[in-house]
Amino acid sequence: MCLENKRISTAVIRRLPRYYRYLGDLVSRDIQRISSKELSQRMNITASQIRQDLNIFGCFGQQGYGYNVVSLYEEIKRILGLTKTYKLIIVGMGNLGHALMNHESFSLHGYDYVGVFDKNPEIVGKQVSEFIIQDIDSLPSFLEENQADIAILAVTKSKAIDVAKFLIESGVKAIWNFTNKDLQILESEVVHIENVHLTDSLMTLSYKLNEK
Amino acid sequence: MCLENKRISTAVIRRLPRYYRYLGDLVSRDIQRISSKELSQRMNITASQIRQDLNIFGCFGQQGYGYNVVSLYEEIKRILGLTKTYKLIIVGMGNLGHALMNHESFSLHGYDYVGVFDKNPEIVGKQVSEFIIQDIDSLPSFLEENQADIAILAVTKSKAIDVAKFLIESGVKAIWNFTNKDLQILESEVVHIENVHLTDSLMTLSYKLNEK
Repeated sequence: MCLENKRISTAVIRRLPRYYRYLGDLVSRDIQRISSKELSQRMNITASQIRQDLNIFGCFGQQGYGYNVVSLYEEIKRILGLTKTYKLIIVGMGNLGHALMNHESFSLHGYDYVGVFDKNPEIVGKQVSEFIIQDIDSLPSFLEENQADIAILAVTKSKAIDVAKFLIESGVKAIWNFTNKDLQILESEVVHIENVHLTDSLMTLSYKLNEK
Repeated sequence: MCLENKRISTAVIRRLPRYYRYLGDLVSRDIQRISSKELSQRMNITASQIRQDLNIFGCFGQQGYGYNVVSLYEEIKRILGLTKTYKLIIVGMGNLGHALMNHESFSLHGYDYVGVFDKNPEIVGKQVSEFIIQDIDSLPSFLEENQADIAILAVTKSKAIDVAKFLIESGVKAIWNFTNKDLQILESEVVHIENVHLTDSLMTLSYKLNEK
């Protein structure tokens, strides 16, 4: 049974990019079908969790035959909104801003930079790759002339709230927040915020170190 | 029923840091008990998922009374290995290495830097905070005299495998991998690797942008 518009829980959504990565790897190796058991071994998730998560894509899984890899991959791609491309700006061109700008995999998935901003007069006006660092005060006029779907917030923690508010007032609809300051309070029906919690990943590693 | 050494699935382990963050927030606000329903609303995870995940800590949840916040927080802290401290080194002192070095929350959780390394003669010998950037060739002798629990790998993608192998040969037991090159192939009984997948978080954001 295919349930086109079945509501997907946030917990499942958070796991979809991981399925997308693994399925993309299978697609690139020309693997056509995979059982929940095989996927379970590759991904280190229980087969029952996988069946439960992917149940929503019922049309691609058939008992005893496994999942149709390409169809499932394409469907997850569609759900994640990756059939479109996204324009990114970076606000805060310190070390992290520079590092994110050079990250090799964003553009592979359709995320492209269109502008970079900072407040510091010592770096405003400098060239970084194909961009000139612009003063953040010019953001509203920039947004009048250019589309920007997602703003990467890479300023210092102490400035996070003020700068995020300014971005929202300027018309930004999605903030990818690297400031280590939780900005969920600024989320609304029209403003989406995703906080990056690097320590979550570090803690998983210290768990593994202690596991005997 | 308290099951002291019940096996915890990898999927649950990956969610524990998130519970730890939210419970830490409740602890700091002196909240003593919380129901799975309330926690569900705060964390945007279904109450049944929470009950299933935290079932393993059965001793802290009591039907109708909710979870004992402090006990659950302390137990998750123990399981994640956060009652100990960890010594970190960074290998690759480009923009990302510098940004991670200045990340404000690692030390709050007991992760402290003890050394930074690079291969580039132009930056080896330079001072960064309280550290002198050391040549990566000096890592084996450094490890003979110093303990380092986790190596942060922040070199370019093309050098990821070679440098990771060198780290493992030098005695490193845990690699926190920021290179965007999957290093799972190097994992073993004694070597733990945690890959940071920033695009997973970015994809969750583009999902939210498309969700109507």
